[in-house]
Amino acid sequence: MEAYLDNSATTRCYEEVKDIVVKTMTEDFGNPSAMHLKGVDAENYIKEATKEIAKTLKVQEKEIFFTSGGTESDNWAVIGTALAKNRQGKHIITTPFEHAAVSAPMEWLQKQGYEITEIPVDEKGNIFLEKLSGTIREDTILVSTMMVNNEMGAVLSVEEMGRLVHEKNPQTTFHVDAIQAYGKYRIYPKKWNIDLLSVSSHKIHGPKGVGFLYVNEKTKIQPLILGGGQQKGMRSGTDNVPGIAGLGVAAKKIYSHIDENVSSMMELKKYFAQELLKLENVEINGPEVEKGAPHILNVSFLGVRSEVLLHTLEDMNIYVSAGSACSSHKRAGSASLTALRLTPERKESAIRFSFCEFTTKEEIDYTLEALKKVLPMLRRYARK
Amino acid sequence: MEAYLDNSATTRCYEEVKDIVVKTMTEDFGNPSAMHLKGVDAENYIKEATKEIAKTLKVQEKEIFFTSGGTESDNWAVIGTALAKNRQGKHIITTPFEHAAVSAPMEWLQKQGYEITEIPVDEKGNIFLEKLSGTIREDTILVSTMMVNNEMGAVLSVEEMGRLVHEKNPQTTFHVDAIQAYGKYRIYPKKWNIDLLSVSSHKIHGPKGVGFLYVNEKTKIQPLILGGGQQKGMRSGTDNVPGIAGLGVAAKKIYSHIDENVSSMMELKKYFAQELLKLENVEINGPEVEKGAPHILNVSFLGVRSEVLLHTLEDMNIYVSAGSACSSHKRAGSASLTALRLTPERKESAIRFSFCEFTTKEEIDYTLEALKKVLPMLRRYARK
Repeated sequence: MEAYLDNSATTRCYEEVKDIVVKTMTEDFGNPSAMHLKGVDAENYIKEATKEIAKTLKVQEKEIFFTSGGTESDNWAVIGTALAKNRQGKHIITTPFEHAAVSAPMEWLQKQGYEITEIPVDEKGNIFLEKLSGTIREDTILVSTMMVNNEMGAVLSVEEMGRLVHEKNPQTTFHVDAIQAYGKYRIYPKKWNIDLLSVSSHKIHGPKGVGFLYVNEKTKIQPLILGGGQQKGMRSGTDNVPGIAGLGVAAKKIYSHIDENVSSMMELKKYFAQELLKLENVEINGPEVEKGAPHILNVSFLGVRSEVLLHTLEDMNIYVSAGSACSSHKRAGSASLTALRLTPERKESAIRFSFCEFTTKEEIDYTLEALKKVLPMLRRYARK
Repeated sequence: MEAYLDNSATTRCYEEVKDIVVKTMTEDFGNPSAMHLKGVDAENYIKEATKEIAKTLKVQEKEIFFTSGGTESDNWAVIGTALAKNRQGKHIITTPFEHAAVSAPMEWLQKQGYEITEIPVDEKGNIFLEKLSGTIREDTILVSTMMVNNEMGAVLSVEEMGRLVHEKNPQTTFHVDAIQAYGKYRIYPKKWNIDLLSVSSHKIHGPKGVGFLYVNEKTKIQPLILGGGQQKGMRSGTDNVPGIAGLGVAAKKIYSHIDENVSSMMELKKYFAQELLKLENVEINGPEVEKGAPHILNVSFLGVRSEVLLHTLEDMNIYVSAGSACSSHKRAGSASLTALRLTPERKESAIRFSFCEFTTKEEIDYTLEALKKVLPMLRRYARK
């Protein structure tokens, strides 16, 4: 038995994704910038992917720009906006629990003289909307927020935030990092006043090394990667046809059965949480189970350090995360759990379980059995 | 019959590359940043690729950093150096026929107040080394040059350039865009005083969407993409394991039989050139056939516009390029051919043929036959 419960770190590719990647690597392998038929064939894969992705968001095809992944999309949104709007102002608003792909470029901008304001969040991961409203100024060029927090699955009210941002200052760009939300939620940038939206492919069973940024046609942004002028000059470099085609297939497939997926993940999550809470010294971090994202459950097993439990479970072929994969090598600890002001004991014992549409009740039961077996043992060990 | 003679635009993936991409997309699909076994397994693919690539260049493994491709590598080299060294100076030297992945970030830097000097080239594509020497100043932070010109295969003496640069100013970073050279030449950054070296995967039968930048351990450069701190903080974002693993396999394979590949391509190129020169009104652009790169031949068929010939050949399943793929959609025309000061007639009728190890004599003969058939017809048509 194996239980892969680290789907927020990365997912297994769909079979259909693998098929189109193989086809575009070995048969239809042309350079989409080439003028001949092999170029045109390659370009058609990109057009098809663009069309399918635009449909899922109800946006225009010309508003989708492919990148090398979620991190590049986030970097581009933040830095590209700052570069494009630095004459309008240098004030940027964000949250205290953004992924490093947003928070690191923010820190960089701060060193360049930009002013960054963080809107506080409560212990469930909810943003204080009235604080956001009061913080938006005339020189606020960007508000950047995630939609689903990657570490504990808090879902932010980006629709309300979008309304507030554009009411307070129509010139402010509203960027949503939807990397953990896309494929789990129906997201409508036009209706929700979202100007920029970042998505990563490998979180939705697509290939690694590709993602996209939705850019509203009216939004000012400068390109980050310059060169041959691909993607209307907004993102140069030979288009990654296999990656883009694979992402298109993944996007189409995941949205074709999103309701079933989401309700099945949510059922499993509720069941898992309910069984976990029957154990001693277990605390669920972040939002209430039903209010959080369907695929993320962050749990503290008090008295057992995250890494110890992670490696113990690993020995039983159960794969989970301590915090997010992207911050796993960092000593500083989880930004999200710190933002929630959890006790050190809870932070040090937090484990993220993350599901996908392929997660089964058998995997959950197997994990529960494993936890029941190892927790008392690990706690006894820890006390010594 | 089909003749794919556009290998400088992109190549077909090796079978072994496809296999490892499939394996890492569907079986060993973990996130290398994850702490558990699936993360470690994924990381091992990256380590293996790094080891193989480092061997081909005789550099240290810790000096290889993966990117999303040649364009990102070039952008990073240019902008990352400018950011890291702006206190030391703002003078940069380059050539007039760089790929847009280098020249576009140069133009951007120029707007930010950097001074860019272009060293002239002669009509064969040779750089004037004495001019380079005279141009390097105390505030010269970067010299950036390609090793093989992508449009007409001129080979630049990067070894001599490296020596000159470091003699004149040991503080100057020497960047070589080796995107058309890697896999065709043995390149030794350490011996040749190269501090930064850009490589793209899809030009050597590896996957699209991946490349690397060699960064000498002592060279100062700032990261371009910020976030989770992957690759020792130098290039954040979930590592593109399938892409990187595929690139590693391609690098290992192409260098394992580089001598045979190169001599076979050079023989074909010489044969092709010799036969072409028997036709009327044919001119070979750029370097003398034997002095140019083994895989690129740029030819003007006077009196026939490039695009017309390209599409005529396409109808016979012969795929070639007018200029480079990356500049094919541009009205401005070829930077390289302009730098060589070719007559407008030669520029407008230039076709790039580019080979790979799989190119056969049959394809060349088929192409020659086709040219013999269509050229008189097209010229007659053009005169009307």
